[in-house]
Amino acid sequence: MTDIEIAQKAEMQRIATLAEEKLGIADEHLDPYGHYKAKLSLEYLDSLKDRPDGKLILVAAVSPTPAGEGKTTTSVGLTDALNRLGKKAVVCLREPSLGPCFGMKGGAAGGGYSQVLPMEDINLHFTGDFHAIGLANNLLAAMVDNHIHHGNLLQIDQRRVTWKRVVDMNDRSLREITVALGGLNNGYPRTDGFDIVVASEVMAIFCLATSIKELKEKLGNIIVGYTRERKPIRARDLDAHGAMTVLLKDAFKPNLVQTLEGNMAIIHGGPFANIAHGCNSVIATKSALKLADYVVTEAGFGADLGAEKFIDIKCRKSGIRPDASVLVATIKALKYHGGVAVKDLAEENLVALEKGIKNLERHVRNLRENFGLPCVVAINRFTADTEAEIDLLRKKLAHLQVDVVLSEHWAKGGEGAEDMAKAVLNVLEHCPADFKFVYEDDTPLWGKMEAVAKKIYGASEVVADTKVRNQIKRLQDEGFGHYPICVAKTQFSFSTDPKLLGAPEGHVVKIREVRLAAGAEFVIILCGDVMTMPGLPKVPAANRIDLDDDGKVIGLF
Amino acid sequence: MTDIEIAQKAEMQRIATLAEEKLGIADEHLDPYGHYKAKLSLEYLDSLKDRPDGKLILVAAVSPTPAGEGKTTTSVGLTDALNRLGKKAVVCLREPSLGPCFGMKGGAAGGGYSQVLPMEDINLHFTGDFHAIGLANNLLAAMVDNHIHHGNLLQIDQRRVTWKRVVDMNDRSLREITVALGGLNNGYPRTDGFDIVVASEVMAIFCLATSIKELKEKLGNIIVGYTRERKPIRARDLDAHGAMTVLLKDAFKPNLVQTLEGNMAIIHGGPFANIAHGCNSVIATKSALKLADYVVTEAGFGADLGAEKFIDIKCRKSGIRPDASVLVATIKALKYHGGVAVKDLAEENLVALEKGIKNLERHVRNLRENFGLPCVVAINRFTADTEAEIDLLRKKLAHLQVDVVLSEHWAKGGEGAEDMAKAVLNVLEHCPADFKFVYEDDTPLWGKMEAVAKKIYGASEVVADTKVRNQIKRLQDEGFGHYPICVAKTQFSFSTDPKLLGAPEGHVVKIREVRLAAGAEFVIILCGDVMTMPGLPKVPAANRIDLDDDGKVIGLF
Repeated sequence: MTDIEIAQKAEMQRIATLAEEKLGIADEHLDPYGHYKAKLSLEYLDSLKDRPDGKLILVAAVSPTPAGEGKTTTSVGLTDALNRLGKKAVVCLREPSLGPCFGMKGGAAGGGYSQVLPMEDINLHFTGDFHAIGLANNLLAAMVDNHIHHGNLLQIDQRRVTWKRVVDMNDRSLREITVALGGLNNGYPRTDGFDIVVASEVMAIFCLATSIKELKEKLGNIIVGYTRERKPIRARDLDAHGAMTVLLKDAFKPNLVQTLEGNMAIIHGGPFANIAHGCNSVIATKSALKLADYVVTEAGFGADLGAEKFIDIKCRKSGIRPDASVLVATIKALKYHGGVAVKDLAEENLVALEKGIKNLERHVRNLRENFGLPCVVAINRFTADTEAEIDLLRKKLAHLQVDVVLSEHWAKGGEGAEDMAKAVLNVLEHCPADFKFVYEDDTPLWGKMEAVAKKIYGASEVVADTKVRNQIKRLQDEGFGHYPICVAKTQFSFSTDPKLLGAPEGHVVKIREVRLAAGAEFVIILCGDVMTMPGLPKVPAANRIDLDDDGKVIGLF
Repeated sequence: MTDIEIAQKAEMQRIATLAEEKLGIADEHLDPYGHYKAKLSLEYLDSLKDRPDGKLILVAAVSPTPAGEGKTTTSVGLTDALNRLGKKAVVCLREPSLGPCFGMKGGAAGGGYSQVLPMEDINLHFTGDFHAIGLANNLLAAMVDNHIHHGNLLQIDQRRVTWKRVVDMNDRSLREITVALGGLNNGYPRTDGFDIVVASEVMAIFCLATSIKELKEKLGNIIVGYTRERKPIRARDLDAHGAMTVLLKDAFKPNLVQTLEGNMAIIHGGPFANIAHGCNSVIATKSALKLADYVVTEAGFGADLGAEKFIDIKCRKSGIRPDASVLVATIKALKYHGGVAVKDLAEENLVALEKGIKNLERHVRNLRENFGLPCVVAINRFTADTEAEIDLLRKKLAHLQVDVVLSEHWAKGGEGAEDMAKAVLNVLEHCPADFKFVYEDDTPLWGKMEAVAKKIYGASEVVADTKVRNQIKRLQDEGFGHYPICVAKTQFSFSTDPKLLGAPEGHVVKIREVRLAAGAEFVIILCGDVMTMPGLPKVPAANRIDLDDDGKVIGLF
């Protein structure tokens, strides 16, 4: 059965019933969106602030490969398993982006028997959060051009407008455009472009704000462009942040849904993991920690990018502290890291596996030594995995004294993840975390990049052209040096070269560009091309996505 | 008190409770969106099909003026009054467009004590319908350019792509743009533009379809462009219509909300009244007629445009037949039609009033003679209206034997509209409608335009350049002659000249352009400039729209 078939066969329970039963949340604290989705009221969440926090488990993965790792399914499976073991556990996930569902990729609500429901809704409009974020972004964009059109009192240099429009669609034609053509009534022509909604700085801010008040404050800080004298112009200068906040006020409430096994999931926010920090909203995670004894959440991409940003950006800004981590890998992915071609991954290959394990080892070391998080290695089990491969893996990891568990949540749901859950509970009980950042606030921006590159990526040095060095210096001088950095680089390698698999060492990290996210309060360090507007493939998924005669969605995997 | 202050002071009842109490709709047939909005399940609506229809009352207005007429408040007030008189009445309205709320205009959910609630939600994201429509539109646009990019098997002539992108924002910079710049990976550059969401043909189709099946069929018929040989390329040729339908499946369910007085309102769909037909969805109106004994609904603009399209497009395609009409006017608006400047409208001016009444008379004649609908004239009362003015109005209309009622719903809610409600009930009881179209299906397109221009607008002739005549002939020859026409012209005059107030006669209607809406199944006849993407004013409403410290929306009028 496909994911959507499994999802559609599932019998969902009313969300209000589940919320009451599982988390003791009364009906009046929920804003229902249909019978199976609800938003949690902010007043209610605020009323929980004196409750103790539950334990937080961060799910990260080895460097991604075409073989897939299954971070989301692992997070869902672990949560279901914890509940099976009698624990009050909630999973916190990112909201999937709608546009890409019509392109190449399938849904992003788990898979197999570890899914969140209602799967179609979560993958499509869900509760409208991304539409609100897109519109808040585009209101600001319209207000920028409108200000210039009506006399430009703020003297925005139209060549230096940095704020782009967004749409939740894979639309390559909008990457580079010219706007305001057609004469006098349409404004001043300039080059521009659209990003996909998840790439909007509004999304990053939305996911880092802890209250509506802070959301508005940070939206006001967004820099939309500069004057000829390079004075920054902010959303606040255009009086746009209040209206943007109004557009976001409902979206800001975390969304409550259920897993296939009827456990609670909070799915809220979904920033890019390259130019942004790639994890669900702070308000969702904080709320979950008040509502449950165990909260499972995932970081984006591989642990070098996603977990590092989770620690250095999300945790730094919010005070959230994970208690343990789970590193997800598959035997296939490790063989890929050992040099096996995609078509040969189903065959046993102990040599390649041994080589590929180095990628996993580096991530384990990072999690434990650099972030101070005890770790469980979860091998997302495939039928092609051989006993010899699994034995080798265990043998090679033995000296690390890390729990290695096989997990079959994809095929068996929570039952298949019970070993993992037990290992996690064991670690939580016996191995207290010694949380640390990779760098401190007062380390200069360049030093922050060096810390991440050397400690986490295994690089020997960081380089940049004079122009980029000057940009960094300028940001440092202008008072942004205390911001954390947000590195945008390939997720396929510890290095900046996507072909350098395994655990490369001594490589050079070259910074190509830096960008200030003045609202989200981080400095984006670009070490590679970042695509902020995907395109559709030749045969897009949209061609097969349809409603069948019974009104059921088909073709959405 | 401002509209929003009145709305926020109101105590709403849970929509599920009201739906049960007022219309006998059980909870399981509702998809709640928060506690005060709900969508009606399509299966439930389908189950009502053997019920008899209620009476339908069409609310139209004199030609619009800056003085305002109050069609929406009248519709809401009439519904509240009918309920006060013990009748089971529901109001059916269009969904407001979000973008313009941030520009000049305030909300569009009624006003004063005749409003629908929750006012902020209805004016902002509501239940996300417009977001879904916008995205369905933009998915198709992305698939067009994607098809061209990946080899263009259908040989779409990129100079002849007619399908535009949309956004729900007043953004003049997007009116004329160049897309797909930046080289090989971004596609083939071409000129393009964005419309506001309500101008999308998807919106028109959405509002005319009677089922999901028909929705998909009509979406498939959309023409997105032409080959060099002018062969039309349809959404179906791109396999886009199934995925578009999936995006619209929830939006297609009508939205149920409440009036300030706790009566039921169905608010669903909102196409432009110029390039489209300007009334709420067919499925909403049809559903309301099954659920209530009396249904009040409004047409767009003045009755020459809105009511004509209601009759000739919406009624023709759906089988819906109004039983009576209400023509809304204000003394101020009539004085404006008599030549008084806006600043002087508060002063008594019997001469101008007498002149301006001719506009109202023409609309009454159209409603009764050309559409066959008995009519009640509702004067939306302002404090500045003098007794002498009201007497004059009654005297001048006496020979028409039409009920003229004063209505004070804005200030007093349903109580203030009881006279109107009684007059409407009286007309419904004693004056059966003799429904007619302005033209028949088999009248050629040119003849249809002549019928509307001469019968409804009072024009002497219709003219067009050879090029336009040839376009019309071509559409006729290609088999689109049986479609109704959808005239886009100024709403401020019966003529095509916005300055020609009152009831001009013998004027000439010049067709500037024709466009085929192959999905919505009408031919748009443009007799004037039509702005399909508004701009923001110098000081946009967005500057004052904000959340106050209690989280309440302010500045949204």
